[in-house]
Amino acid sequence: MKIIGKKVKRIDGFQKAEGSAKYASDYYFHNMLYASVVYANVPHGILKNIDVSKAYELPGVVYVATYKDVPGINKFGHVIKDMNFLVPIGDKVRFEGDVIALIAAESKEIAEKAAKLVSCEIEELPPVLTIDEALKDEIIVNGDSNIGFHRKIRKGHIEDAFKDADLVLEMNFETGYQEHAYLEPQGAVAYYTPDNVMEIYVSAQCPFYVHEDVANILGLPLNKINVIQTETGGGFGGKEDVPSYVAAKPALLSYLTKRPVKLIYTREMDIKETSKRHPSKSYFKVAFKKDGTILGVKSKTYLDMGAYSTLSPIVMYRTTVHSCGTYKVPHVFVDVYGVYTNKVPCGAFRGFGSPQVLFAIESVMDEAAKRLNIDPYEIRLKNTLDVGDETATGHKLTSSVGAKKTLKKVYEISNYPKLKDYVKKYNETNKFKKLGLGWSHIFYGVSLGSGGQHLDGASAEVLIQPDGTINIMIGNTEMGQGAKTTMAIIASEILGQKLDKISVLQPQTLVLQDSGPTVASRTTIFSGNAVRIAAKKIKENIIGFLSNYFGVGKNEISFSDGNVLVRDKIFTFEEITELCNKNNVKLSEIGWYKTPKLHFDHEKGIGEAYITYTFSTQLSLVEVDILTGKISLKEAWVCHDIGKVINYDGAIGQVHGGVVQGMGYAIMEEIKQDNGKILTDNFNNYIIPTIKDAPQNIHVEFVEEEFSEGPFGAKGLGEPSLMSSPPSIANAVSNAINKRISKIPISMEDII
Amino acid sequence: MKIIGKKVKRIDGFQKAEGSAKYASDYYFHNMLYASVVYANVPHGILKNIDVSKAYELPGVVYVATYKDVPGINKFGHVIKDMNFLVPIGDKVRFEGDVIALIAAESKEIAEKAAKLVSCEIEELPPVLTIDEALKDEIIVNGDSNIGFHRKIRKGHIEDAFKDADLVLEMNFETGYQEHAYLEPQGAVAYYTPDNVMEIYVSAQCPFYVHEDVANILGLPLNKINVIQTETGGGFGGKEDVPSYVAAKPALLSYLTKRPVKLIYTREMDIKETSKRHPSKSYFKVAFKKDGTILGVKSKTYLDMGAYSTLSPIVMYRTTVHSCGTYKVPHVFVDVYGVYTNKVPCGAFRGFGSPQVLFAIESVMDEAAKRLNIDPYEIRLKNTLDVGDETATGHKLTSSVGAKKTLKKVYEISNYPKLKDYVKKYNETNKFKKLGLGWSHIFYGVSLGSGGQHLDGASAEVLIQPDGTINIMIGNTEMGQGAKTTMAIIASEILGQKLDKISVLQPQTLVLQDSGPTVASRTTIFSGNAVRIAAKKIKENIIGFLSNYFGVGKNEISFSDGNVLVRDKIFTFEEITELCNKNNVKLSEIGWYKTPKLHFDHEKGIGEAYITYTFSTQLSLVEVDILTGKISLKEAWVCHDIGKVINYDGAIGQVHGGVVQGMGYAIMEEIKQDNGKILTDNFNNYIIPTIKDAPQNIHVEFVEEEFSEGPFGAKGLGEPSLMSSPPSIANAVSNAINKRISKIPISMEDII
Repeated sequence: MKIIGKKVKRIDGFQKAEGSAKYASDYYFHNMLYASVVYANVPHGILKNIDVSKAYELPGVVYVATYKDVPGINKFGHVIKDMNFLVPIGDKVRFEGDVIALIAAESKEIAEKAAKLVSCEIEELPPVLTIDEALKDEIIVNGDSNIGFHRKIRKGHIEDAFKDADLVLEMNFETGYQEHAYLEPQGAVAYYTPDNVMEIYVSAQCPFYVHEDVANILGLPLNKINVIQTETGGGFGGKEDVPSYVAAKPALLSYLTKRPVKLIYTREMDIKETSKRHPSKSYFKVAFKKDGTILGVKSKTYLDMGAYSTLSPIVMYRTTVHSCGTYKVPHVFVDVYGVYTNKVPCGAFRGFGSPQVLFAIESVMDEAAKRLNIDPYEIRLKNTLDVGDETATGHKLTSSVGAKKTLKKVYEISNYPKLKDYVKKYNETNKFKKLGLGWSHIFYGVSLGSGGQHLDGASAEVLIQPDGTINIMIGNTEMGQGAKTTMAIIASEILGQKLDKISVLQPQTLVLQDSGPTVASRTTIFSGNAVRIAAKKIKENIIGFLSNYFGVGKNEISFSDGNVLVRDKIFTFEEITELCNKNNVKLSEIGWYKTPKLHFDHEKGIGEAYITYTFSTQLSLVEVDILTGKISLKEAWVCHDIGKVINYDGAIGQVHGGVVQGMGYAIMEEIKQDNGKILTDNFNNYIIPTIKDAPQNIHVEFVEEEFSEGPFGAKGLGEPSLMSSPPSIANAVSNAINKRISKIPISMEDII
Repeated sequence: MKIIGKKVKRIDGFQKAEGSAKYASDYYFHNMLYASVVYANVPHGILKNIDVSKAYELPGVVYVATYKDVPGINKFGHVIKDMNFLVPIGDKVRFEGDVIALIAAESKEIAEKAAKLVSCEIEELPPVLTIDEALKDEIIVNGDSNIGFHRKIRKGHIEDAFKDADLVLEMNFETGYQEHAYLEPQGAVAYYTPDNVMEIYVSAQCPFYVHEDVANILGLPLNKINVIQTETGGGFGGKEDVPSYVAAKPALLSYLTKRPVKLIYTREMDIKETSKRHPSKSYFKVAFKKDGTILGVKSKTYLDMGAYSTLSPIVMYRTTVHSCGTYKVPHVFVDVYGVYTNKVPCGAFRGFGSPQVLFAIESVMDEAAKRLNIDPYEIRLKNTLDVGDETATGHKLTSSVGAKKTLKKVYEISNYPKLKDYVKKYNETNKFKKLGLGWSHIFYGVSLGSGGQHLDGASAEVLIQPDGTINIMIGNTEMGQGAKTTMAIIASEILGQKLDKISVLQPQTLVLQDSGPTVASRTTIFSGNAVRIAAKKIKENIIGFLSNYFGVGKNEISFSDGNVLVRDKIFTFEEITELCNKNNVKLSEIGWYKTPKLHFDHEKGIGEAYITYTFSTQLSLVEVDILTGKISLKEAWVCHDIGKVINYDGAIGQVHGGVVQGMGYAIMEEIKQDNGKILTDNFNNYIIPTIKDAPQNIHVEFVEEEFSEGPFGAKGLGEPSLMSSPPSIANAVSNAINKRISKIPISMEDII
């Protein structure tokens, strides 16, 4: 490998650092209007009337749009369309962030003032605010029952497991919300010219979702809307489906006014209206043999979907599949329920429904180790998956299983036995500050898997310009995770052009085929393969031509480091490009990648859940102040099997970020609500980790068990990098205070 | 054929008619500056000093750029770089439109005012204003000699022809300028974000030229500039290379100010600075046998290039090849010279250097017919090319030669013998108004041919959206000629989707590979083939999938009229698209087309000049008022062999426009100059035909001698549609007044 796996500078780093990167809020068009949003601001009720007359009286107000102005389908929902875009009179308000009206005005200030002048008459209903209340089904939030969705796994005979067990653990767990807290709030600018193409500039992970959703709302054909993803300052799942709801607002106003319209969310709007990680309640009953072998897992998990289903049914697929952790489990009886409440709809968040259950199962594993007097490392090593084993869904793994290696690597780099000793001694001599060590061992099904294989294709265009510089456009997005650099590395590896001559464009939905969402750690495999395929085709075109032109064998031509070797003569890449151009060689190709078909029985939850799995192990060292309840993550050792590492520094960065965001989830971040209203609506009261909260050392290692379908053998890392962190930290805290933690975020009260 | 050759509505007609089409002047960006241009305004001199201080004193002036501000190469020129972008101090001014400085200001008005405040000290030199003066080489305009370029054909032994001849005609011809008079003047908006991508929105035929030229001027890599062609209101060759000179101005100012900059030319600027059709002087000596057979052509043609070579060397290639007309000529001795003068540089114009010599040779043919007492129709029929014949450059034609058929068709539809009778009788009874009939018979080498085969590739992307609507992007441009409709028809024919579900996007140079210029009537063959290839690939992808999915043979699947027939079941195109999408079928492809290699000896001017030829015949009926000199084209009968007609109404429109623009050239349009300064600088004094000047009837017929390489057998029409008109009209006037016209535009003085 010439560049793959090497340390390189991220190709979009400079422009972000110097401030020239153009985010949605940096787009200004002539004659542009500014939008504002009128929210319901009550958790449950019936909309009786909307009075927009006072808003219209304000000079500078150009349009006040309500449900009556929607030309297409006034509904959202990727699985079921249960959410109004603009609540119609007579219909229900289901959470405080339901949208009643939209304002377009000459300035942001006027728009915001006008929003306050729209009066909504809402007949309030008693709200359903907890999972337990919802399960009673006394007050129905949405649909026919508050239990909107149910997924399960039925494998083996769970009662046999309990019968044969030496130890049966029954444990309950709870997890809280997590806010994505991306640096850049949601925002979009829409620009509609009738009978031409509507352009939508949007901060988004999934421009193709925006494309389809806005087309539905406006009743326009897809080839008349171009969604251009702007530089996106973080997503973490929060910009998966949400940007559709965001972009549809200026899009409708632009459609109605025929002027460009901009809407940039404030942090308060963003926290009020947009999705979070699902709070959950889990009940786990797990059977072990004396030696630590798991015999069976029975679990029931409730996810709080909030008012609308949005992506929950898909999130629940991942919750279900990941419920038994990274282990061989012969008997499985898993239930996952999605529950409606009168709160903010929850949806995609890095880990996508798996952190909730991984926290549970990893806590169970630690508790079992304790009860059985086995080291937490050893109990994981005993039960973990290997080549030839089956996952909990019965997916037989035939290759690329580095699970054990990640455990062993963490054991080795942390110098675990010595570390345990050190902790023991420290705790013996320190009364009020306790250290704790906690393991986690997780797996992650890469990409959409059987839950969404109809979306699992991806497109990329590679184009060599006449001066030898290269453009790439991929159908997935850069949102800070380093995808652009990874794609450029892949093209550089294949074409031999230097990395600084390669740039990656923002995607446009009229240029590339729907490449599915940028989620599920799928970009490296999907867009990476698409780039690989396109670059290889171009390389073949060039080699075919050169071989003819110079009369040499195709195998006598090679590309590297900005040069092309033709038998024994070295040309610069630019010389070869010029020659190819003069001879009309095709230098642009679209690569398209889709995965082999997976087989899965959705009724039983049995089958090939995902195309491949990333395996990860984390060991965390925490310090707990027994007096104040303060928890500090002091150090972490992490190892991921992500197949071939393409973008080394990018991967390290992902893990650093993931560990810290996972730490925030485990010990810091908490959404506080009052009667369905979010109180923690900005970063002064919703506290996320800062650099000062991050551990001084996060030791990262990779195991490279190559995935034959991945580009150069790569798998995915974006989500697992977070997922290992919460259970590892929770276990470390349990270890430090010698008391089982069963709820995250861990609060002061749990400690003291 | 399901739709090819049928009458369809042009797909971009409505938005142009209702005014929603976005031209360069319709682009407004936030914080945008306006540019103005400081011209030399003297025809010849040495630039001694530039004083920008007064301009800077004007409030609202942001930047005054001179040659010192150019970061890259301060030169233009596609063949040789003999033209300054901004004239440096100490260098020469060579025509009134040379550019000294550029202003960027907060408003258009301020920018224009500031331009007048820049003072240039120019030491004037005597200007060279005519071809004859230039040939003396006493004052050198540019380079080492005013004869900048020379092209020739040497075939056979020309002296033998004259020896064996029964009739040798020696005739001189002159032709004047022609201004493109596109509806939309030149204009561009540039938007530069450092370290990101510079976006250039420009009215242009050739966005890839703009891309390369601006990159050179600014010293930027090509993958950091995206040129987006805006809706373009006419080109006719005037937006081939010129938009580079236009766009480089706001591009430089945007580079310097980091703000968007807009420059829209006034008509006066446009006429002063931008290219025209070359004035020419020709000397023809042609040998005939008694029966009208041509034995040889000796010709010498001088083209007035103006101050810079720009595209002249390439224009001259076409002049040379077309010098002997559509005829079998055994002995050929052709010379074409490009001559520098201190006037506006001449360049590309519909016909590209051929109308000048076609006027000459067609006048010679008529004169020979008269002298030999042969009907002008008959002398053409005798000498014209057929399959198996060789062109003047020795290109043996093996197929797709409908020349004779076009002659016969015009004879037939005009009812020629009866018409001749009518004219004769009319003239016998009318003293002051005379009718005249004039034939022309021309050919046109389609695309760039051996003169520019390194540019003869083209790219197109076809993308089917999930809702079955289709986007196409081609590397050639729509500029009013109907290319978008033609491309959509081709895609519709292949994919069976309805035309109104297909849209064609404006090209972007970061999305498509350099597809060469949109000139030389090459779009139908090149982009058409690229679309055909891409659409066919997609169709194969779909058929491959459907055949598997439904278990039917590939030949049992067919597409038409918005439906897909799978064995005996009919699906809508949308149903099939949805199914394909769910199964991740690749629905976007890039097609790339290049022509087979041509062989041509540029020293002798012998070989395969072009990939194929369009053949055309026109008969014009004019009325000449002997007292006033007024000429009216009353009626025209035209037949073109353009291979398969793709876009029938579009083709008719091309011919109507071509006949009238050719009429303008022949009898109306005249650039008047005084000491190198153009006096006719707007349409109040540069008179072009209006609808009232157009003949009531232009009868159009097509002969479809299919070209095997063309998409569905198509050739090209854009330029020949004009080319047949001037010689036909000139011959008709000669016929009416019984006096040989040897100069166009024909003036009142030539008649009276």
